[in-house]
Amino acid sequence: MAAWGERLAGVRGVLLDISGVLYDGGEGGGAPIAGSVEALARLKRSQLKVRFCTNESQKSREDLVGMLRRLGFDISEGEVTAPAPATCLILKERGLRPHLLIHDGVRSEFDQIDTSNPNCVVIADAGEGFSYQNMNKAFQVLMELENPVLLSLGKGRYYKETSGLMLDVGPYMKALEYACGIEAEVVGKPSPEFFKSALREMGLEAHQAIMIGDDIVGDVSGAQRCGMRALQVRTGKFRPSDEHHPEVKADGYVDNLAEAVDLLLQHADK
Amino acid sequence: MAAWGERLAGVRGVLLDISGVLYDGGEGGGAPIAGSVEALARLKRSQLKVRFCTNESQKSREDLVGMLRRLGFDISEGEVTAPAPATCLILKERGLRPHLLIHDGVRSEFDQIDTSNPNCVVIADAGEGFSYQNMNKAFQVLMELENPVLLSLGKGRYYKETSGLMLDVGPYMKALEYACGIEAEVVGKPSPEFFKSALREMGLEAHQAIMIGDDIVGDVSGAQRCGMRALQVRTGKFRPSDEHHPEVKADGYVDNLAEAVDLLLQHADK
Repeated sequence: MAAWGERLAGVRGVLLDISGVLYDGGEGGGAPIAGSVEALARLKRSQLKVRFCTNESQKSREDLVGMLRRLGFDISEGEVTAPAPATCLILKERGLRPHLLIHDGVRSEFDQIDTSNPNCVVIADAGEGFSYQNMNKAFQVLMELENPVLLSLGKGRYYKETSGLMLDVGPYMKALEYACGIEAEVVGKPSPEFFKSALREMGLEAHQAIMIGDDIVGDVSGAQRCGMRALQVRTGKFRPSDEHHPEVKADGYVDNLAEAVDLLLQHADK
Repeated sequence: MAAWGERLAGVRGVLLDISGVLYDGGEGGGAPIAGSVEALARLKRSQLKVRFCTNESQKSREDLVGMLRRLGFDISEGEVTAPAPATCLILKERGLRPHLLIHDGVRSEFDQIDTSNPNCVVIADAGEGFSYQNMNKAFQVLMELENPVLLSLGKGRYYKETSGLMLDVGPYMKALEYACGIEAEVVGKPSPEFFKSALREMGLEAHQAIMIGDDIVGDVSGAQRCGMRALQVRTGKFRPSDEHHPEVKADGYVDNLAEAVDLLLQHADK
């Protein structure tokens, strides 16, 4: 593989995944990943542009940023690209009134959305909200629509909490797709639209940006398909088999965000 | 389409789906589909062999047969091919110790199975048992296995209760497949092994038997792939679009079991 100097040449901005890169979620709000608070601070003092690109759909951006700031991270709401606000834009543009299968923590993002007489379903990481009853209700709403529309906030398979691996929204999206014989529209990584909106907000072209994430598919493959480079960290949901993925090869694998920032500060934009 | 006489020529045995053909499940045990009790009685008085082939995985065969007899159906346990007993055979043959994600109603079928230190997951129609917590536990068991094995009792998308359509095991099987990046082994319709065991128990060859079911994929396509003929009834989960399915064409569509039996008694084995 080429030297880091070559692999990171011309990088002017960094897109950071949050869960599994900055912190691991869990009971009591979770814990920072060792070295990440300081690594982010160094990155933000550099010439590189920084933006956060998350599929977090259990919490509103306000709650997410509040929690991260309490853990010591230098982050503000305006720096975060997240699927719930992106979904609200789509709902308004297309005149869609959702039945919401979402976590209470993210409900405030949908305060301005008309949910009467639903003509689509929005599914997000609902955690314990993925009861049989709630899934069945979403299924029944879809089956009664002539043209069933299912919007999914991300399609992650699972994420890591301090207590272990937890099912993400993706498996439940697949369940509804199969039950109804439809295909969901994914809002969030790895959707190209989502990465492009994050790039627009940074004012950079894809070739000038690099994604740092723990998800070989959602982060690494998704960013690369948009023309970005991508590093995978060996934290969060990373598994050793990811480094031998049959279809996806990251532009580099690093132990954690701290190592990624070391390399970027040494080699990027040279 | 050919005349019924031609389509039913040489039929010597009938495989009957249960839910959606004999009865619709629901609160208080469900209700017989109009004409089905009497149609089954006529069929059993005929020269045709009769066997029941169900993917019912919420109830033990004992409970299922007891419930059907209370509804007036002439049926006994020995006439039923069901996925739970078939699964127990597979578990014993392969030395598998399952983590069970199943309905309490079917648990007695697994009484003789060692469930200590699980090396596979068995998933059945668990109904309300498909909580986030239970799904996550099954997911975690699979992710900890070097060679994850997932056995699914059927892969139906949904079934119809008197109160409406209900999610079946299939969507939850798909959820775990996606979450773990694996493929489940289906025990039950439309698995060819399952149809073949029902045929063996009837002592018939595939070309001598006809399946009657409400599921265009699980019943009709599954039976046809085994070389049987298959009728779809317009009861249970039948939807008008099934008659224009892009890939599956039944050997005939009938309003209900009563019409199917009328036609069979008139034309079969002639």
